[in-house]
Amino acid sequence: MSAADAEEVEKANTAFYEAMEQGDFEGLSELWLDEDISCVHPGWPVLSGRGEVLRSYALIMANTEYIQFFLTDVKAAVAGDTAVVTCTENILSGGPAEESGELGPLVGQLVVATNVFRRTPEGWRIWSHHGSPVLTESDEEDDEDSPS
Amino acid sequence: MSAADAEEVEKANTAFYEAMEQGDFEGLSELWLDEDISCVHPGWPVLSGRGEVLRSYALIMANTEYIQFFLTDVKAAVAGDTAVVTCTENILSGGPAEESGELGPLVGQLVVATNVFRRTPEGWRIWSHHGSPVLTESDEEDDEDSPS
Repeated sequence: MSAADAEEVEKANTAFYEAMEQGDFEGLSELWLDEDISCVHPGWPVLSGRGEVLRSYALIMANTEYIQFFLTDVKAAVAGDTAVVTCTENILSGGPAEESGELGPLVGQLVVATNVFRRTPEGWRIWSHHGSPVLTESDEEDDEDSPS
Repeated sequence: MSAADAEEVEKANTAFYEAMEQGDFEGLSELWLDEDISCVHPGWPVLSGRGEVLRSYALIMANTEYIQFFLTDVKAAVAGDTAVVTCTENILSGGPAEESGELGPLVGQLVVATNVFRRTPEGWRIWSHHGSPVLTESDEEDDEDSPS
C-alpha cells in the first residue's frame, strides 16, 4: 500500500464530507460509483443502488440547514484497487429554522463511519458508506471481564 | 461479477455468523485478514487491527450465553478480489444467567451490517465489519419532502 494511494483516498473521503457540508448534491452524486453501491446512515436500514442512496441524500440535504463534519481518527487501508477508510465524524448540524431567516437549534452528534472506495479512471469513488451512532464509551480496555 | 464468486462470499459471510453463534473464537479469528482490519459493533467506536478486534469478540463471547442470527436482505457485490456484503442481522441473544444453569433473559435486536471481504489463497476473508442498530422505520419512501 503506497502512501500516495492512501493520500488520494483520504482526499476522496474529505471531498465526500465537503460535498455534504456544502449541500452539493451533484458533487456528492459524482463521488459515488455507478453500480452496486450501499449506504447506511446512522440508525437507518441499508439503502442499495444509486436510486435509493442518492434519494436519501437529497432528503437529508433538504432537511439540513447547516452541517459541519470534524473528522478525527481517519485511517485508510488500501489493497489494490479498493480502500477502506474509517473515521469518526464529529457532527454539528442544524435543521431548517421554524421561522425563516434563522437557523434551527444546533445539534452535536458522534458518528463512526466505514467508507469503502474503488479506484476508477476518474479517481477513487465511493462503493459503500456505513455510519453509526456511538452509544457507549470507548475506554473499556481495562475491563478484566475477558475470558482467561 | 460471477455468480460463483457471490456464492463463495455469501458462504464466508454465513460462516462469520455461525462462528459467533457457536462461540468458536478460533474459527472466527481465522476468518479475519491478518492486516488492516477494522470493526464496529453496534453503538461502539471503531476498533482497528487484530488485537483490538479479536479482543472485542473474546469479550462479547464471554458475556453471551446464547446468540442466534437470522440473516435477511443479504446482498453481495463482488469487484475483482474484494466484496461488499450488506445484510440485516435479526439477533436473538441472552447473557449469562444470574443463577447458574439458566439462561439470562433473551433480547431481540435489529442490526444492519456492511461486511467487506478480500479474496485470499485460503478463501474470502473479512477486511471490515460494521454493524449498527436500526433506530428508525424504513418506510419513508413515500415521503414527499425531497427537494424539487
